[in-house]
Order: sequence, then C-alpha cells, then structure tokens
Amino acid sequence: MKKAIGVFDSGVGGLTVTRELIAQLPNEDIVYFGDTARVPYGIKSKETVIRFTIENILFLLKQNVKLICVACNTASSCALPVLKKNFRVPLVGVISPGAREAVYATRNKRIGVIGTKGTIKSRTYETEIRQLDPEIKITAVACPLFVPLVEEGWLEGGVVEEVARRYLEPLKKAKVDTLILGCTHYPLLKPIIRRIMGKEVTLIDSAKQVAIEVKKILDQEGLLNKNGRPQHRFYVSDNPEWFSGLAKRFLGRPVKNIKKVNNV
Amino acid sequence: MKKAIGVFDSGVGGLTVTRELIAQLPNEDIVYFGDTARVPYGIKSKETVIRFTIENILFLLKQNVKLICVACNTASSCALPVLKKNFRVPLVGVISPGAREAVYATRNKRIGVIGTKGTIKSRTYETEIRQLDPEIKITAVACPLFVPLVEEGWLEGGVVEEVARRYLEPLKKAKVDTLILGCTHYPLLKPIIRRIMGKEVTLIDSAKQVAIEVKKILDQEGLLNKNGRPQHRFYVSDNPEWFSGLAKRFLGRPVKNIKKVNNV
Repeated sequence: MKKAIGVFDSGVGGLTVTRELIAQLPNEDIVYFGDTARVPYGIKSKETVIRFTIENILFLLKQNVKLICVACNTASSCALPVLKKNFRVPLVGVISPGAREAVYATRNKRIGVIGTKGTIKSRTYETEIRQLDPEIKITAVACPLFVPLVEEGWLEGGVVEEVARRYLEPLKKAKVDTLILGCTHYPLLKPIIRRIMGKEVTLIDSAKQVAIEVKKILDQEGLLNKNGRPQHRFYVSDNPEWFSGLAKRFLGRPVKNIKKVNNV
Repeated sequence: MKKAIGVFDSGVGGLTVTRELIAQLPNEDIVYFGDTARVPYGIKSKETVIRFTIENILFLLKQNVKLICVACNTASSCALPVLKKNFRVPLVGVISPGAREAVYATRNKRIGVIGTKGTIKSRTYETEIRQLDPEIKITAVACPLFVPLVEEGWLEGGVVEEVARRYLEPLKKAKVDTLILGCTHYPLLKPIIRRIMGKEVTLIDSAKQVAIEVKKILDQEGLLNKNGRPQHRFYVSDNPEWFSGLAKRFLGRPVKNIKKVNNV
C-alpha cells in the first residue's frame, strides 16, 4: 500500500507548508492533522506542547505515513529536539530549514526571528543558527497578536500596521538584514512586514525549504512516489467549518472532506 | 469536612468572578481551575466546549465542592443549557445573571452583547433576554481580538482603541443603552469601551450578579459557611507561571500556590 506524508499543526497554519509540499511533490499522498480542539500551541508550556506533539505523531502513524512533517514552529522548536530520536519515522520540523536559509541569506550577520511566545522562549532558532555560524547576532521577538489578527482576517489596515510597527521596532533597531517568519501564520502578513522592514530585508518563510528537505529525505530513503493520483486527506480535532473557512487563505484553494476526529 | 465553592474557566478570566466571590463570601473556601492547556474556548465548537466543561466539572467534584460556578461565558452559553440537569451539584453560569441585570437596566429596550465567537454563535444571551422580555431588541457582536489584547496587556492606546471602535460600531449604530460585557476578560477593557460607547450606556459586567446568585443558592440550601479561615486553591492544566503573571491583573492581588494538574 502506498504510504502518505503526514503533516500536523496546531491548527490551519501548517497548510502553508502543505501548499509547498503539494507543489514540489505532486505525486504524494498527504494526511494533514490540525489540532483545532487545543489550538493555539504558542502560549502553552514546553511540557504540554511535547505531550500534544506525541499524541499527534501517534495519530498520524495510525494513518500509515512514511514521514511526518511538523508544520508548526512551536511544536518544532519545543518538542522536536526532545522527540526526534524516539521515533523511527523521519520527523521533519520547520526550524532547521528556516535557520539554514537565513544563515545563507544574511550579509551583515544580523538575523531577526519572530514567532509565538513558545517558539521564542525555546531559543531553538538561536541554537540552530549558532551551530551554523556562531558569529551571527540574533534578535528574537514574540508577536502574540499576529496569529489572532491573521485568523480574524485583518491582514491590512491601521490596526495590523500599528501592531506590526510595535513588534518589529527592535528588529529595525538591531539592523537585521534577514528576518525569519517563525510561525506558519506569518507569511500571510508578508506585505505589511515587508513594508515596515524595508525591501532590503530578506524575509525567510521556511515552507519552501521544508518541502525541499522532505523531498530529499524521501529520495534518500527510496520512498518517493513516482506516479499515481495523489490523495489529500484533512483531519481536525474540532471545528471543521472554522478550519474550512480559513483553509483557503492558507492553502490557496478550498479544502474539501475535512474529517473531525476525537483523538484528543 | 467543610466544602468549597468550585470555579472554573478556560484560563484566567474567571478570576474576575472569583474576586467578587471572595468579596461577597469572605468565609468560603474556593477551588479554582483554569484549563490553560486548552485555552481559549471561544473559538472552539459547542460540542468540544461541552466535552471540556464535563471534564472540568468532574475534576472539581473530586475537590469536594458544594457548588460549581462556570465563570466562563463560552462554557456557560454553549454547555450549561445542555448539562444543567445532568448534575446534582448546583451549577451557576454567568449568562443568566448578566441577562437579568441588563433587562433591568435598559430604558430604551435595546441591549448590546459582546463576547467570543462561541458565545455569540450560541445565542444564549438572546434566549435568556427574550424569556425575560420578548420586546427587547438585541445586537450581538463577536470580538475575537479582545482576549489576546487583554492577555498581551494592551489595555490602552491606539491599537486597542481602533480595534474597539471597529467592533463596537454596530452597537453604537443600534443605539443600545445597555451593553453586556459577555466575556470575563472584557471588564479589563471597561475604560476604553466606556469612552467609545459614551457614559450614558450602562456596561454590564456579570461578576457581581453571579456572586449574588451563588450566595443566594448557598443560603437557600443551608450551605453557607458562617465563619472560618477561608482557603483559596488554584489549579491549572498548564503553565502556572503564565497564569500567575496574568492573575494579579484579574484578581486584583497576587495568586500563590498555583498547582499544575494533568487531568486533561
């Protein structure tokens, strides 16, 4: 039986990664799980995020997956460093690919990171970046209002502009030339972030790099699907209507057949 | 053994009700549970909020409580109408007391309600108000950004002002003379809401009425504590530090001895 790529996120954000996976791996089956009953993860403790992540991995393993993409920055940064060696299935997070791309992109060795409280507190981006280049100066800022703003659909206008100005000020002061959008919701705020940071600052949205990494691993392991009609299945732990309403904005197309499961 | 009053909320918001309970019932023991591992409830489905509410009630029953106060508008509006008759312990929600007070306060029979998506979608305030006076015109608006703004501590300034102006506009247009703050976080935004709505609009914050109702029920059932040194215990399902950091703002004094439990 053909195995699928498993993807999970606390909610809808991981669909930005799924979009890239579909683009780069058009023959692959994908099983997506959004933990909408317990969303958001960004404000929860490391311990709790680890527990939720284990439960999500176990759910996806039951769906016959060959690789699991942790398409949530909070879960990737809080749980993956601890969990990676405990599972036989390859686990691909969103931190390392973003960190690598940022190190590659920076010219002045000043990188900014924005993310949820959980992601910033974990300092995982710092750890990853310093391993690649210990000389890089990192400025990290938590932006807790960005996720609710995106989910409310306020992507432009005075409110989001002022919120973004306040959050991004320390990054402008630090003169970063590269900014990691360390949360799967943030790519939807790219226009406003670009306007505030200026065109000369490179914005790193790890989705593309994550898909490249997934492809590389599947290729190395001989697990790529060469052909076939791909199936994309979507599971949520709550509120399929809410998920469906937001999904189009993240995936770039409507999502059908969203199934609610009671696994958590 | 002396029994306590149980209180639960999805997070810290219920502390505004707890504050009133302590003020009006200074001899009572209180056991508070904040479901911070699954907060917020306001964006979740009715079915899931019912499930969480049952689990929270069962947890509090194990703590030897004589009454449970559902100090969360979303749980009160989505779950209480369904659950009320299933438990022997008295369950006091925050909807009826607020609705009653609003009906009592209005002169022009136009009442506004603001709350989370879950609360507004449930239409429980409408149902309660219409039972008391079917002629009243109700305008209800969901304000999803208010909770994250309060938790970020942005209670004044340009951002919250503009967000509030946008949310409150239909209520001003509807010329309500009474506005129910249908979420335990919203009392912290009272100054700005009052400024936008105008001084002639009565703001209903149900905490006081809830405490009066709790007192009445305990008195009727002969369950009031006449004396004794009250004990206040606080449990959370995640992140005691986060809870503690916000608690002072809601309870009006620091909270000590917050215990993390793994019940959910």
